[in-house]
Amino acid sequence: MKKVPDILSVFGDRVRELRQAKGLSQEGFATACGLDRTYISGIERGKRNVSLRNMKLIAHSLGVKLSTLVEGL
Amino acid sequence: MKKVPDILSVFGDRVRELRQAKGLSQEGFATACGLDRTYISGIERGKRNVSLRNMKLIAHSLGVKLSTLVEGL
Repeated sequence: MKKVPDILSVFGDRVRELRQAKGLSQEGFATACGLDRTYISGIERGKRNVSLRNMKLIAHSLGVKLSTLVEGL
Repeated sequence: MKKVPDILSVFGDRVRELRQAKGLSQEGFATACGLDRTYISGIERGKRNVSLRNMKLIAHSLGVKLSTLVEGL
């Protein structure tokens, strides 16, 4: 049986990909967002049920629209 | 000075509009989402920093894509 990917994991993978594409470390990205590095790490591992405000901060720091960041989720 | 609308208020207004367009009460909508009515009320008043999982539940119950629900936010 195929496992359906968890929405938090898919979101986290997307954040990691976009962050790395910008050549940013978790530390540098966290600073850009005004969030903690361990929080970003948790998001990228699909362990954090990220809030709307923080999703907006993340999208802004990645230079993408929030709607793009959640496209297909 | 023009006040910038808060992202939670804009999101809440959008949820209320779409819910009402479907002819659903807060109670009926909350049941459809599997969430508490007081939580839905808080979201619609822009008082809750809604999480990704709950945004997905809300979008699904409203019959819209998550990306549509946050379009322009």
